[in-house]
Amino acid sequence: MIGIFDSGVGGLSALRAARELLPTRNFLYFGDTAHVPYGNRSPDAILRHTRTSLRFLCEAGVEAILVACGTASATALPRLRGEFSIPIFGIIEPTVEAALSATKNYRIAIAATKRTVESGAFSSALLCREARVRARGFPCPLFVPLVENGVLDKDDPLLHLAICRHLSPLRTFGADVLILGCTHFPLLADAIGEIYRGVALIDSGRAAATQLLSLPPRVERGECRFCVSDDPHSFENTAELLLGHAIRAERVKPHCSEF
Amino acid sequence: MIGIFDSGVGGLSALRAARELLPTRNFLYFGDTAHVPYGNRSPDAILRHTRTSLRFLCEAGVEAILVACGTASATALPRLRGEFSIPIFGIIEPTVEAALSATKNYRIAIAATKRTVESGAFSSALLCREARVRARGFPCPLFVPLVENGVLDKDDPLLHLAICRHLSPLRTFGADVLILGCTHFPLLADAIGEIYRGVALIDSGRAAATQLLSLPPRVERGECRFCVSDDPHSFENTAELLLGHAIRAERVKPHCSEF
Repeated sequence: MIGIFDSGVGGLSALRAARELLPTRNFLYFGDTAHVPYGNRSPDAILRHTRTSLRFLCEAGVEAILVACGTASATALPRLRGEFSIPIFGIIEPTVEAALSATKNYRIAIAATKRTVESGAFSSALLCREARVRARGFPCPLFVPLVENGVLDKDDPLLHLAICRHLSPLRTFGADVLILGCTHFPLLADAIGEIYRGVALIDSGRAAATQLLSLPPRVERGECRFCVSDDPHSFENTAELLLGHAIRAERVKPHCSEF
Repeated sequence: MIGIFDSGVGGLSALRAARELLPTRNFLYFGDTAHVPYGNRSPDAILRHTRTSLRFLCEAGVEAILVACGTASATALPRLRGEFSIPIFGIIEPTVEAALSATKNYRIAIAATKRTVESGAFSSALLCREARVRARGFPCPLFVPLVENGVLDKDDPLLHLAICRHLSPLRTFGADVLILGCTHFPLLADAIGEIYRGVALIDSGRAAATQLLSLPPRVERGECRFCVSDDPHSFENTAELLLGHAIRAERVKPHCSEF
C-alpha cells in the first residue's frame, strides 16, 4: 500500500496519475482538511501538520509516501525525510526535471502558493540543474479556495479572472513553460491552458507520481482508501467532481499534541 | 480590557465599530489564523478552536469577549457560554434585531459561510422573534478567502463576479434586507451594495459591537493589542488595508491538546 498526502483535494491529481501508472497497487490517501489551506500558513505550522500527517500514514502501514502537496514538499519535506524509514517522495525534483525537458528558452514560470514561492524551492532546484534558467514565481492564493469549492469549469468567467489576476505578467516574462507547483493547480489546467496557449504546463501531481515506478513491483487489489482529518462530506463532493466517480472518505484523528 | 475574537481579519470590522463606540477602552484582538477559514470546517473542529481561543483571551485578563465570528457564534457559542464566567457576546442576536428593524416585506436573506447557513442559527433567531419572516441563507464560501487575500476594491471585476455567483438568487427571492452574517463580509459591503441597490445591508460586526455598551463604563488608555495564532505578517498586511493604518501583531500559542 502506498500513501498519498495532501492538505486537501489537490493530491487527487497525483492519485489519478498514480493509479494509471500502477493499477494493481493499493493506495491510502490522506487529506489534512482540518488545516487546509497550507499555502498561507507559517513554515513551522506546515512542518507540524506535515509531520503529523506522515506519521498517520506510516502507522497505517504504507510502504512509501508521495507528498502530493507543493507547499509541504517545498517547506517541510527537506527537514522531515530523516525522521522516517520509508521512501518519501516530494513534487519538486520530478516537476523540475519535466520543466527542464519542456523549455526551449529557459524562462520558466512557477505558479504556486504564497509560501512555496517564498521558499524558492522550485527556483533553486531549477538553477542547480541548469544555470541558463531564468525562473520566476507567481503566488496564486485564490486557486486553492477555488478548487476546494469546486470552481473548476474552464469556461467559468470567475475562474478566468482569477487566473488572469495571478498570472498576467507571464507573457511579459516570456515563459514558455509554466510549472503548476501546487497539486491543486493541475485541476485548473484546462482553464489556464486556454488563456496561455503556447505555454507548456507542467502537472506537478503527474510528474511526482512517476517516481512511484521506482518502488518494487507488487500486485495488490488496486483499491483506494480515503481519509481526512475533518468533515468528509465536502471532500467527497469535490473528489467526485475531480475523479468522475463517487468515493467514501473516513474521518480520522491523527494525534498531535501541539496547537 | 475587552477581548474580540475572530478566525482571521473579519472581526476587525467589529473592532473598528467597537473603538468608535468605546474610544477609551482597551481591546485585545485575537485572530485564530492557524485555523482560518472556519466556514467549511466541521462543527466539532469549530467548537474546539473557539474554546481554545476564548480561553486564551480569558487568561490574558479580558473582562468580556465579543465573538466577532459568524461561524463560531452560530455553531459553538451556545455550547460554550456556560464554560466561562465573563460575558460573551455573539453576533446572531443583535444582527437579527437590526435586520428586523430594517425590513418592510419580512423577506430577509442571510449571506454567511457554509457552516453558518447549515446551522440555521440566523433563520431560527429571526423566526423566534417574528413569525411573518421568510428567511433564506446563501452560502458564500469564496468571500473569506477573497477578504483574507485583500481583494476588497468595490470596482474589482473578480469580486463583482464572486458576489453575483453567491448572491444572484437574491432578487428572485425578493429580500429587502441582506444580513452580512460573517464579519468578513461587511468589508465587502461597498461592492455588494453597488450590485444590490435598494437592499439594506446589515453589518453583523457593527451590530454586535453595540452590545459592548452594556458593560460597566471604564476609562482606559484606548489601546489595542493584536494577537494571532500563526504568521503575523499576512494578518498585518490585510489589517492595514482594512483599518487604514499600520498595526503590529504578535504571534501567540494558545494551548490545545487536541489535533
